[in-house]
Amino acid sequence: MKRTKYSLLLASTAAALLASSLVSADALPSIVPAPADNPTTPEKVELGKQLFFDPRLSIDGTVSCNSCHNIMSSGTDNRPTSVGINGQRGGRSAPTVWNAAFLSAQFWDGRAATLEEQAKGPPLNPIEMGMPSEAAVVERLNAIPGYVEQFKTSFGGKDAVSYDNMAKAIAACERTLITRNSPYDRYVSGNKNALSQQALRGKKIFEQSGCKACHSGVNFAGPELPIGAGFYQKFPAIASDYDAKYKLSEDKGRFEVTKDKADMNKWRVPSLRNIALTAPYFHNGSVETLDEAVRVMANTQLGIELNDKDVADILVFLESLNGEFPDISMPRLPDTMNSSQVGNMK
Amino acid sequence: MKRTKYSLLLASTAAALLASSLVSADALPSIVPAPADNPTTPEKVELGKQLFFDPRLSIDGTVSCNSCHNIMSSGTDNRPTSVGINGQRGGRSAPTVWNAAFLSAQFWDGRAATLEEQAKGPPLNPIEMGMPSEAAVVERLNAIPGYVEQFKTSFGGKDAVSYDNMAKAIAACERTLITRNSPYDRYVSGNKNALSQQALRGKKIFEQSGCKACHSGVNFAGPELPIGAGFYQKFPAIASDYDAKYKLSEDKGRFEVTKDKADMNKWRVPSLRNIALTAPYFHNGSVETLDEAVRVMANTQLGIELNDKDVADILVFLESLNGEFPDISMPRLPDTMNSSQVGNMK
Repeated sequence: MKRTKYSLLLASTAAALLASSLVSADALPSIVPAPADNPTTPEKVELGKQLFFDPRLSIDGTVSCNSCHNIMSSGTDNRPTSVGINGQRGGRSAPTVWNAAFLSAQFWDGRAATLEEQAKGPPLNPIEMGMPSEAAVVERLNAIPGYVEQFKTSFGGKDAVSYDNMAKAIAACERTLITRNSPYDRYVSGNKNALSQQALRGKKIFEQSGCKACHSGVNFAGPELPIGAGFYQKFPAIASDYDAKYKLSEDKGRFEVTKDKADMNKWRVPSLRNIALTAPYFHNGSVETLDEAVRVMANTQLGIELNDKDVADILVFLESLNGEFPDISMPRLPDTMNSSQVGNMK
Repeated sequence: MKRTKYSLLLASTAAALLASSLVSADALPSIVPAPADNPTTPEKVELGKQLFFDPRLSIDGTVSCNSCHNIMSSGTDNRPTSVGINGQRGGRSAPTVWNAAFLSAQFWDGRAATLEEQAKGPPLNPIEMGMPSEAAVVERLNAIPGYVEQFKTSFGGKDAVSYDNMAKAIAACERTLITRNSPYDRYVSGNKNALSQQALRGKKIFEQSGCKACHSGVNFAGPELPIGAGFYQKFPAIASDYDAKYKLSEDKGRFEVTKDKADMNKWRVPSLRNIALTAPYFHNGSVETLDEAVRVMANTQLGIELNDKDVADILVFLESLNGEFPDISMPRLPDTMNSSQVGNMK
């Protein structure tokens, strides 16, 4: 079984390499870059998938990475903000995990440079998964024989089971979560029928009215930057009634990380890939529909009012950024015999 | 893709039919019976799998069937009692969904006769998924085009999208959640090396000391009975210090359903299949480990004290009831464009 999966991965990589010469530079790349100290391997991807779905990474066994970043769906929970342990509400809307591998910085405020760094946050966040310490997570992992074995296979060495390696495995899995071959990608790769006339009108408005100034690049999240160098913009940039209506500037964004006034209300420009699927919108999830989000952006960032037809056309274009979600096998979470690790959690 | 899955199902059914002649009557049957009005079809199973994993069946989009009955794991949440919406705690421990298709009554107190009836409970339970009404659930399903299409394919007719059909699809999926080919099943089917000497000693104690009087049948949950006729036993049956220690008789069990004093503290006898994986134990999840659960049962039901060696042997036998968990593909939950159904849930 393992060999079959590995062969499939090799075959698909080879196919991707072959295909890459046919794919436009504007389409999602076939190869997902990985850090030198965390090359993507099938063993790590499989381990990372199990960890991603494992609620035992939360103190009471109720919240997994997937609870807020649902891989079976849009990679989000489609809520304004997420719900962690004990019904606690987070402060910001969960960003999608799909194609996050192509971002140069993670979290809304870019406070993590890599997927590895990002994955180390939520388990210890008291509102999210609530584990008391890295050591407590490692203790849990060490009590699950199926994990110990896989950490050894994936990372080798005596201290294979570590918090850092947990994050590396999850990041490796996330690098496989790419939605290629959207109508847009097919269009820019030469299939001129992949976009409808309405989508093409929307594309033109999107480009000419200025949306593309920030939502550029293959991920529609800004120019290609070195890992760690996030692409930030002030939002809202222009005074607008929308600000009060949706409390957009209440959260100070990147300023909370840097305490630099120049970063006040600045945010990492989010990807627009699969944006039609990730409602509600913005860092506080305050806007329920994509058409309203488009109006807000035009107004607060570009100072323009779009008419209904323009909005409708842009929406159809944005829907063309919905990619193909790969088939994934369901992980089996490794068991413990006789007792469970959350069996005493009232 | 759909045809491939269907062919695979047909092939595996044929293989199962062939194999069934070689399988002992004590092993889990190859064929899972389905009600006449809900024959198991590949389309229904696929739809049911999506519904089982869909948190949109809960009011705020945070709880799915799988949250408490984790198919990637033991079919439970391995907690004493489950956590529903807004961090609310349920009153009883989540029973496993694996092999539930072989029970003649559902829930700890047997208040649902069928899987179909059971599946209609949690979405409307205010502590669990909190939907206000059947109509509210149907409204949500009707707003998801991918569901509407699949309900039509699975059930046909104008009113294909209904609460009853939702339950039927989930039940159809659950009838595929069977863990066959455990060491015990292989042993009773003729492979005399499938059980270790210690497991065989445990089996003998299990049978001779009286455990098997209730934990009989292929599912170790009692004799084969017509659907709806649950097999109930009083627990605790004999006065014991364990009662106070684990608050075993606080919950009146089936009495709460029938209000018949004869049903006081009576419970549906649970299956022992995969029991080593479903800690913690009993209706209130008060006992953290299986060895303690075995001691409690011997004491409160049979009036005997087991020595440590007997307990260890029984544990090894019970572990031999861990079956093989089938490979399952991850469902894609059907999307909505532009907005989400829980996008306004603070």
